[in-house]
Amino acid sequence: MHNVDLIPGDSLLTKTPDEGRQLAIAIARRVVKATQPDAATRERLREVYAGDAALLLQVCQIVATEFATIAAANGYWRTRHDEP
Amino acid sequence: MHNVDLIPGDSLLTKTPDEGRQLAIAIARRVVKATQPDAATRERLREVYAGDAALLLQVCQIVATEFATIAAANGYWRTRHDEP
Amino acid sequence: MHNVDLIPGDSLLTKTPDEGRQLAIAIARRVVKATQPDAATRERLREVYAGDAALLLQVCQIVATEFATIAAANGYWRTRHDEP
Amino acid sequence: MHNVDLIPGDSLLTKTPDEGRQLAIAIARRVVKATQPDAATRERLREVYAGDAALLLQVCQIVATEFATIAAANGYWRTRHDEP
Amino acid sequence: MHNVDLIPGDSLLTKTPDEGRQLAIAIARRVVKATQPDAATRERLREVYAGDAALLLQVCQIVATEFATIAAANGYWRTRHDEP
Amino acid sequence: MHNVDLIPGDSLLTKTPDEGRQLAIAIARRVVKATQPDAATRERLREVYAGDAALLLQVCQIVATEFATIAAANGYWRTRHDEP
Repeated sequence: MHNVDLIPGDSLLTKTPDEGRQLAIAIARRVVKATQPDAATRERLREVYAGDAALLLQVCQIVATEFATIAAANGYWRTRHDEP
Repeated sequence: MHNVDLIPGDSLLTKTPDEGRQLAIAIARRVVKATQPDAATRERLREVYAGDAALLLQVCQIVATEFATIAAANGYWRTRHDEP
Repeated sequence: MHNVDLIPGDSLLTKTPDEGRQLAIAIARRVVKATQPDAATRERLREVYAGDAALLLQVCQIVATEFATIAAANGYWRTRHDEP
Repeated sequence: MHNVDLIPGDSLLTKTPDEGRQLAIAIARRVVKATQPDAATRERLREVYAGDAALLLQVCQIVATEFATIAAANGYWRTRHDEP
Repeated sequence: MHNVDLIPGDSLLTKTPDEGRQLAIAIARRVVKATQPDAATRERLREVYAGDAALLLQVCQIVATEFATIAAANGYWRTRHDEP
Repeated sequence: MHNVDLIPGDSLLTKTPDEGRQLAIAIARRVVKATQPDAATRERLREVYAGDAALLLQVCQIVATEFATIAAANGYWRTRHDEP
């Protein structure tokens, strides 16, 4: 594994579901970065999966799985943390 | 990631299971949008997976995974929220 | 998404595990219907996946995932609801 | 969906983990039966997936997913039910 | 299904996470054995998936899924059972 | 299965989410090692999946699944353990 920060901010807690969703996408990408450290190769692969129906759906499946964990960590944001 | 609202209404809470299911479909689509920002390409890919048995089943798998999270967030709607 | 009822009866609660299993199959099918609204195309795809080992297994995986949610919603039917 | 019993005994509760595992395999098979009612076709497909590495692994994935639900239903058999 | 012991020791409880991991691998293999009872065929398929990147990753996915259940059964080994 | 340590430190508990993520990657790799003991073959397969979009996404899916278990084991790191 290459030395990359695997979780931005090193926490699963976010203020809102939307930020939780962004975090799900971010942590999935960092696994790609740790597995394929060459930025040019990653860019090429990214164009492949953004234009292929099956791969795009695979991306959705990963985000859904990561998000399940983040949502549980945040108690599903049933009580909002962004209010005074 | 492109700047799109990833969760409509920024909440996982819905009044009914049916609305939870709609939300599951909606949040999956927004991952597609964030990954492939070009609307014409998305439209082309959508026709691909709507007419292909394997891809259509992949869509079902994603919705099932997203829905599991939304259902847990809503306590499985054991107590209905839409009654007076 | 096309306007279909996504959950029959708009509830995850069923009397028995068997009915929960039927519901799992039913809600998966409605995602297919929402994604591919043309009945003739759906019928053609259905024949494809009913005769293909890999696709048939993909159907099983989806049903297993949907059923996990429905079973949790029903407290795994540890106490039966169909007794007087 | 064809009219088959989807869960033998209509219960997720089993005496032992081993019986839970058997149930996981049984309920997965009944989804195959409900989706492909023709016994001869099922037999042909079964030979296909028993001799193909990828499909055999797909079977394992399904059983793992079904078993997760059954294990949760049984409180993971932490207390054995088969003792007097 | 062929008559094989599906869970060694007929219990999901293990002393350590490492033993839990071994159990995850073991119970996945017994599904292969139950589905494909011919030892020679299994050996041939095993060489296929040990030398193919996609199939090897599929094995990892199965083990991850089985392990999730075993880890939950053991309360994630937060309190170690192997101390006096 | 070949005799490898399947979990480094034989524990699912980590100080931070980032270390939990590293553990998720590490335990997935050890399944590869247990299934394919030949280091040269593993190195060749690793180059295959690091350069292939579909396989790279499969790696992400595995890590997401392993991480779900590790995160649950650590109570999602809601209370940080690295403070005095």
